[in-house]
Amino acid sequence: MAKQRVRVLPLGGAGEVGRNMWVVEYGDDIVVLDCGVMFPDADMLGVDLVLPDITYLREKTDKIRGILLTHGHEDHIGAVPHLISDLNFPPVYGTRLTLGLLGNKLKEARLTDKVQVNTISDASSFTLGNFTIEAFHIAHSIPDAVGFAITTPGGMVVYLTDWKLDHNPVDGKPTDLEKLAELGQRKPLALITDCVRVESKGYTPSETTVGDAFDTIFAVAPGRIIIATFASNISRVQQAIDSAEAYGRKVLLLGRSMENNTRISLEMGFLRAEPGTIIRPNEMGNYPDEEIAVVCTGSQGEPMAALNRMANRDYPHVKIKPGDTVVVSATPIPGNEVSVSRVINNLFRLGADVIYGAGANVHVSGHAAQEELKLVLALLRPQFVVPFHGDYRHMVLYRKLAASMTKLFTEEQILIPEDGSIMEFAPGFGKVTGKAPVGYIYVDGTTVGDVGNVVVRDRQMLAKDGMLIVVVSIDATSGELVAGPDVVSRGFVYMRQSQDLIEATKDAVRSALTSKNGGSPALGDAQYVNRKIKDVVSEFLYRETRRRPMVLPMVMEV
Amino acid sequence: MAKQRVRVLPLGGAGEVGRNMWVVEYGDDIVVLDCGVMFPDADMLGVDLVLPDITYLREKTDKIRGILLTHGHEDHIGAVPHLISDLNFPPVYGTRLTLGLLGNKLKEARLTDKVQVNTISDASSFTLGNFTIEAFHIAHSIPDAVGFAITTPGGMVVYLTDWKLDHNPVDGKPTDLEKLAELGQRKPLALITDCVRVESKGYTPSETTVGDAFDTIFAVAPGRIIIATFASNISRVQQAIDSAEAYGRKVLLLGRSMENNTRISLEMGFLRAEPGTIIRPNEMGNYPDEEIAVVCTGSQGEPMAALNRMANRDYPHVKIKPGDTVVVSATPIPGNEVSVSRVINNLFRLGADVIYGAGANVHVSGHAAQEELKLVLALLRPQFVVPFHGDYRHMVLYRKLAASMTKLFTEEQILIPEDGSIMEFAPGFGKVTGKAPVGYIYVDGTTVGDVGNVVVRDRQMLAKDGMLIVVVSIDATSGELVAGPDVVSRGFVYMRQSQDLIEATKDAVRSALTSKNGGSPALGDAQYVNRKIKDVVSEFLYRETRRRPMVLPMVMEV
Repeated sequence: MAKQRVRVLPLGGAGEVGRNMWVVEYGDDIVVLDCGVMFPDADMLGVDLVLPDITYLREKTDKIRGILLTHGHEDHIGAVPHLISDLNFPPVYGTRLTLGLLGNKLKEARLTDKVQVNTISDASSFTLGNFTIEAFHIAHSIPDAVGFAITTPGGMVVYLTDWKLDHNPVDGKPTDLEKLAELGQRKPLALITDCVRVESKGYTPSETTVGDAFDTIFAVAPGRIIIATFASNISRVQQAIDSAEAYGRKVLLLGRSMENNTRISLEMGFLRAEPGTIIRPNEMGNYPDEEIAVVCTGSQGEPMAALNRMANRDYPHVKIKPGDTVVVSATPIPGNEVSVSRVINNLFRLGADVIYGAGANVHVSGHAAQEELKLVLALLRPQFVVPFHGDYRHMVLYRKLAASMTKLFTEEQILIPEDGSIMEFAPGFGKVTGKAPVGYIYVDGTTVGDVGNVVVRDRQMLAKDGMLIVVVSIDATSGELVAGPDVVSRGFVYMRQSQDLIEATKDAVRSALTSKNGGSPALGDAQYVNRKIKDVVSEFLYRETRRRPMVLPMVMEV
Repeated sequence: MAKQRVRVLPLGGAGEVGRNMWVVEYGDDIVVLDCGVMFPDADMLGVDLVLPDITYLREKTDKIRGILLTHGHEDHIGAVPHLISDLNFPPVYGTRLTLGLLGNKLKEARLTDKVQVNTISDASSFTLGNFTIEAFHIAHSIPDAVGFAITTPGGMVVYLTDWKLDHNPVDGKPTDLEKLAELGQRKPLALITDCVRVESKGYTPSETTVGDAFDTIFAVAPGRIIIATFASNISRVQQAIDSAEAYGRKVLLLGRSMENNTRISLEMGFLRAEPGTIIRPNEMGNYPDEEIAVVCTGSQGEPMAALNRMANRDYPHVKIKPGDTVVVSATPIPGNEVSVSRVINNLFRLGADVIYGAGANVHVSGHAAQEELKLVLALLRPQFVVPFHGDYRHMVLYRKLAASMTKLFTEEQILIPEDGSIMEFAPGFGKVTGKAPVGYIYVDGTTVGDVGNVVVRDRQMLAKDGMLIVVVSIDATSGELVAGPDVVSRGFVYMRQSQDLIEATKDAVRSALTSKNGGSPALGDAQYVNRKIKDVVSEFLYRETRRRPMVLPMVMEV
């Protein structure tokens, strides 16, 4: 690495939405920006979470001066408990709410004592190694969110992600345009910014427009009102509480992450409610339906979250009934459309009125649309721009958008990274110069990394056509068939209805193992028998059924 | 069944989108309306197609006077080859194009000689048993589509599905409003209608608006233009051909179903092209890029379709390169969003410009929006209405929409069916009176029905946490362990990295099989040993990993 260049690379979050994590490196200093999780794609079967790949940092942990967190969403803080030990416990910097939400995770992972956390404000300035870090306020769908300007000896990198230009935010704190203008005057070398809403023209509406829609619903709903939203969207919960108070309703907060996040936010003052507004489930019976509002998890159709359990009559505290009004205050994340749709259908089936979708104005994005993206580019005028936090197409469209601004950027000034792309910057120089090793790091159950691509590929194969196990016992010396073949299948055909196929499969195995094979290894070789069974059975089954179940021969030598 | 009532029931397509099939029954006569397939949900792992459940008809095949097909889409004709034999080969009625597309399917299934097909026009009137059938033209995203009025001795049922009020359709044939008005004067007893676009306000735009968007693209695209759309959307293909001819481009039609459907449509005159416009892949080299347009399959991100193969550099005839303009002329069907998104990202990666999404105006729906639904209700004024071809929520919203029309309908006149709901109608009477047995009938590979819910549930379990096979050989008389335990896992953990876990699992099995179990059956009982291994290993693995792989003990008695 050329000493005079600032090195920047994403370990996750480039060309995907989730597991955001960036490295900014100069000389002997590294700061890490965010450390989030991603929820698995539909084809990552059985995987619970996906983490950034920190291979690049493993040999450099002594250089890491700190982890800077922008805000308290899962895709920015969720991987800290999983990875901080491998990073050798660098200090963590974040605002009060961000650290409050992180603290809960560290506690669950029994890491509270091991992690040094440092509370910053949205006007903090501090040094880490040879870097000066300045935090500044941004408006997003969670309070207490910040961006960072990192001044290295080689130039300034601005990290501005998950932001919008909300001029009327719920907490009264808009994005700090004055600071952005001031940073612009200092000629940033590079800007790293999210781009996920680049397909949307104009401006993203203010979060407070959702409160107006809530008021309209609260004014007329005949029975209970149940609002599902992201547990981390504290501003949304605040607006539900405000509407409830304005229209004389008590509020129940339901779902594990909703209860956790709101408890922390209430304690810290980021969520405000009048005494007595928030009630417990066992107090519900004291109030008529028209005085109750529920705010709960499950807006993405997650199987175990409160809303889906209500939709399946499987939630103890709330049984959906005619007269209930359910508000789905979220947009399905790509991949969740069908689950969300199923929940809505089931709520209608139980007689509820359901308010959802773009026309209902019960959700706005927390991310900037085209005009906001351009405005910030015009204010900051960085020499180079690296979009991320979006699919590949979003980054390409972002580059087009930037290049469409009169005289401000050429396409060459916009670098499109992939995870692991090593970018180096110096005045007048900005290029991808290398590639760090990166892959998907899966969390399944309690363990990180023991489920890899091979395991997921096997699951995909099993999911498609199931499997068939063929067990034989052979004499260790003579190679003769002593017992079997026994055949068991799962996920392939319904065995009771397919006895003919199973018997024919056994016959195929028997005849393969007893026929003379001129020149082939002795049948006493278990590995050879294994291979032979696999080939014969796979071919036989494909011919008979046009399916390719996983064939697993088990050869016991006795 | 009360003889004086008309009985109507859906065998598929109610509360779902796909596998449309209806029964209209009165006295000894039955007509079947449509016979389509559904593409599987994401959780129907490995299933290729889902069919309607014809259990209700099995004992009544002698009453079936005919199958009436409305149009040539898969969800209306696709199940005919799979089910017509079980229905005892009733005659099939459809328009020229519908039967042309069906003919291809019957040929592939080697059923051509067995099925009696009867060509009707969009003004045909004919009798089937005691029923009089009248066909009438409707505008949809495929030409030669019709609705049916079925006049039984007990009253008239109008079947109007997959329609819109396109006043400017590509083939010049709008929905026959005059006929609808005339049917309205005859006081229909019941209307069966699709409702999938009831969430959309206003009118669905005309199909020809897409042609205008194509013209705009053709006017400026610098290199090749590649348009992906549904192979069955003949009107869309026509517009691509029209634009190509207007802007001096040759047209390649690629993808198996695209080639089949366009061949049939061209032969029958439903698709028109000037001589020489349509070229073969081997002629591509004779023309510069700016004189080539490709129309292909894959607009839903289907893995094996032309567009996805192009996006993965795996399609022989078209290698995507910078300068190419790809138009995704379709909206993702719910569940396909992520696949479509992946294809678009990969096309951008290869340097293509991709035009997609609502803002680009390169797709319109073939289904009616709110104002159209209301207009037809006002024209027909049926005594009862049964919405279908939509999720449960669409049917509920349709009922609300109908009930919102001044003085025309009460909510009781709108019946919301589920698959198998038996509805009976007579003047002044319309109710769900029973339920026919229905389920999902899966097609996987070459066979219908041997993959059922048990098999799919197994696949779901395998997909989530994989499986672990434990093989032991025991002495048939003493019950002593002769060989093993051997352990093989797939889709659970990566075995090479998890030797400790595997060894510990073997130890757990060994100790379970050698410990004395007071009062339990002898260990020589293979079934007992099987159960024992399953319990011990499942519990052990859950404790160690918090995962629940399928545990399959294989006990060989030797």
